[in-house]
Amino acid sequence: MVQDAAHTAALDPELDPDHHHGYLQAKEDYLKRLRRIEGQARGLQRMVEEEQYCIDILTQVSAMTKALHSVSVRLLEEHMNHCVLGAARADEQAGREKVAEAIEAVARLVRS
Amino acid sequence: MVQDAAHTAALDPELDPDHHHGYLQAKEDYLKRLRRIEGQARGLQRMVEEEQYCIDILTQVSAMTKALHSVSVRLLEEHMNHCVLGAARADEQAGREKVAEAIEAVARLVRS
Amino acid sequence: MVQDAAHTAALDPELDPDHHHGYLQAKEDYLKRLRRIEGQARGLQRMVEEEQYCIDILTQVSAMTKALHSVSVRLLEEHMNHCVLGAARADEQAGREKVAEAIEAVARLVRS
Amino acid sequence: MVQDAAHTAALDPELDPDHHHGYLQAKEDYLKRLRRIEGQARGLQRMVEEEQYCIDILTQVSAMTKALHSVSVRLLEEHMNHCVLGAARADEQAGREKVAEAIEAVARLVRS
Repeated sequence: MVQDAAHTAALDPELDPDHHHGYLQAKEDYLKRLRRIEGQARGLQRMVEEEQYCIDILTQVSAMTKALHSVSVRLLEEHMNHCVLGAARADEQAGREKVAEAIEAVARLVRS
Repeated sequence: MVQDAAHTAALDPELDPDHHHGYLQAKEDYLKRLRRIEGQARGLQRMVEEEQYCIDILTQVSAMTKALHSVSVRLLEEHMNHCVLGAARADEQAGREKVAEAIEAVARLVRS
Repeated sequence: MVQDAAHTAALDPELDPDHHHGYLQAKEDYLKRLRRIEGQARGLQRMVEEEQYCIDILTQVSAMTKALHSVSVRLLEEHMNHCVLGAARADEQAGREKVAEAIEAVARLVRS
Repeated sequence: MVQDAAHTAALDPELDPDHHHGYLQAKEDYLKRLRRIEGQARGLQRMVEEEQYCIDILTQVSAMTKALHSVSVRLLEEHMNHCVLGAARADEQAGREKVAEAIEAVARLVRS
């Protein structure tokens, strides 16, 4: 099936198994966002080193949390478009299992 | 109209109005949770009336927010299982539109 | 008892029962907000009864959560202005204990 | 300057520059937590590079958000113990201004 899919993928990139986690087309965008978040984590260390004002540090922490939430909402959307809808098209039960798994991730995001 | 729809539903369960928003099977459970949340809102008014300790009021507000989050995660799951997967089975583009709409709701939950 | 406390309050405003939980001056405003939130909880029950669209229900749940967060941030501010600062003026250790208690409430809010 | 300040600090610990933003005593602990968070940001990049499963990436994002929240709650506590209580002891109006500023930071955390 992977063979077939790879073959079909030449015609239709949506079916390319190298895309089955859904986020590949946006891979470079995710990496860019995550590198920026890594930079924010380093910026926070510098602020603490320089003993900057707590409230300014907290403002940066909020900005970083927002950036992380934005990455996760984007990841979740691609996951749902690819894995969840893909599973749903193949099999109703598989679709529901993927939904249950995605919902657990949403519940963790809402609480985190 | 319910008649007609019920009739159509015999042919296509997706069109059955008793299921089209997905949450009907759990309707009584949602109502019970929401009545409890309404009771929590009344309990908070009583606490403020009686000038109870702020921190105890805040603890109740957190419990109420948690109860609301739990309702919304449950609603979202049923919505995804019914509307989103149903749309996806019918038509890929429709599935993606439903995913985009559900994701906006998740983004609002994560921020709220 | 209110008599006694009012009497003591003449000597020490911190003991004045009209101020000791800090939120009394805004009591009517809190009650108004909480009645509106109670109304939102009833509105949600109506939406579920009428089987309205899940996403619209979720939008209302987000609005209600926002309203609750807004009440709690306001409550926390008054609590800090009255109880926490009041305790701090009286005694450093008492101030720190009140801060620790308020911070636990913040941690619950952030997670809820 | 540190000498001078340390000297003054012997008279009034509030004036000690090694404490004036309140978090210095925990500086090394914050740096350790922030380096771990920076490592989590790099780990996420690796997961995206290796095209790991979206849900696993989301789980890591939630863990990282939790770690950030924990840093901010800790920072806020120290800020309140030092800057807010310190200002409150010096002057009631100054205390209220510090509370207002801290509450805005809490509101951003709750929403972020």
